[in-house]
Amino acid sequence: MPSFYYFCCVNIEPIAYFHSPLTSKFGIPRQSNIVGELRGEIVFEPAYRHAEALRGLEDFDYLWIIWGFSENVNAEKHATVRPPLLGGNERRGVWATRSPFRPNNLGLSSVRIERIEDGVIHVLGADLMDGTPIYDLKPYLEYVDSHTGVRSGFVDEKPWQPLVVVMPDELRALFSPNELETLQAVLAQDPRPQYHDDPQRIYGMPFAARDIRFRVTDGVLQVVDVINTNNIKKK
Amino acid sequence: MPSFYYFCCVNIEPIAYFHSPLTSKFGIPRQSNIVGELRGEIVFEPAYRHAEALRGLEDFDYLWIIWGFSENVNAEKHATVRPPLLGGNERRGVWATRSPFRPNNLGLSSVRIERIEDGVIHVLGADLMDGTPIYDLKPYLEYVDSHTGVRSGFVDEKPWQPLVVVMPDELRALFSPNELETLQAVLAQDPRPQYHDDPQRIYGMPFAARDIRFRVTDGVLQVVDVINTNNIKKK
Repeated sequence: MPSFYYFCCVNIEPIAYFHSPLTSKFGIPRQSNIVGELRGEIVFEPAYRHAEALRGLEDFDYLWIIWGFSENVNAEKHATVRPPLLGGNERRGVWATRSPFRPNNLGLSSVRIERIEDGVIHVLGADLMDGTPIYDLKPYLEYVDSHTGVRSGFVDEKPWQPLVVVMPDELRALFSPNELETLQAVLAQDPRPQYHDDPQRIYGMPFAARDIRFRVTDGVLQVVDVINTNNIKKK
Repeated sequence: MPSFYYFCCVNIEPIAYFHSPLTSKFGIPRQSNIVGELRGEIVFEPAYRHAEALRGLEDFDYLWIIWGFSENVNAEKHATVRPPLLGGNERRGVWATRSPFRPNNLGLSSVRIERIEDGVIHVLGADLMDGTPIYDLKPYLEYVDSHTGVRSGFVDEKPWQPLVVVMPDELRALFSPNELETLQAVLAQDPRPQYHDDPQRIYGMPFAARDIRFRVTDGVLQVVDVINTNNIKKK
């Protein structure tokens, strides 16, 4: 028997959790760095709250996060998936995609470090939902992690088409400038459930303790209402 | 209690194991892509051996591997580590380094896909030891994974100094051209145990079913013998 069958499974535990204004799966950017304005925080678990463990991280611009698709742990997993970028009809092998439905439910994202304060890492551009468990952090090393001029499969052929976002001034006034910029970028990514395209329907998306109500017609997303949910997070 | 304290630990299981001519920790490249000639294979576990799961991967040049530092599972972990690049004297926080001694023992490497054959992914440039468990594979997407002109902390200041490798012709003749090229690149990275610097001592490194014996003096690595270990892997 070869030497590598010594053990089967290992246990991993969250070292931190992610905090984001996006409290549901709707509106989560399809990849990291697409919505560069989106702020989030990495908050360590008490057992890992050591200022020392962050020493030197301020000298890096980007950070890798290895995290868990915690909502999908019990979902069925298949050898092939249908990437939204291909219209949801074509199948690709799960290892040829970044699909959230995968064995071991691990996610990988590079994020920009905005600042580190009181042991909390403030980052930009994450595609993690509020409350996502984080299993590892690693500094981004350009000389080993950055490859340019390389083939990226079907992703090269099908650039994502953003929606035009229309929002009346009285609704805009409910947000801070950064919230507004982030919200518009998130909405442009089309937060509707996959394969939904009903121009009559009013959809809702939780964002920064509000419920954003909108309609989509012919590539234009119209925000029709914003409901204050009084800081009660949906779960 | 916030919504994210629903669970503690999750179990992950290897989907594949890595095959490499490097069967000990000595000689493993300090990062992926440093020894671009180094060939390795990703061999799926029987439960994950589905040709379908690889469909489309041939259109990508690079692959992410999330793997386990399986040798270090029971090692003590500290909030700070001493990166070899800094000479082993200075401490940095574990989250500011790619140290193998880290909570959850997860490794992250990008590798070049050489070819996919009979369900086995042949890759170049990996920093994984023979027998390393693999937990996830993801295609490398240049538009989200590649960041250029970014700060990479202490790694920017201290480029690694390779050794000069000297090897007599009769020992060179024992290897195939690719083996020889790989071996020289691996030796140039200095495979001695960390903080060892004894010019009298003869060190050994298992490589491709041989034991490579060498000495290091003043930045020059001299191969003194190659012992055939008859395909018996050390463990």
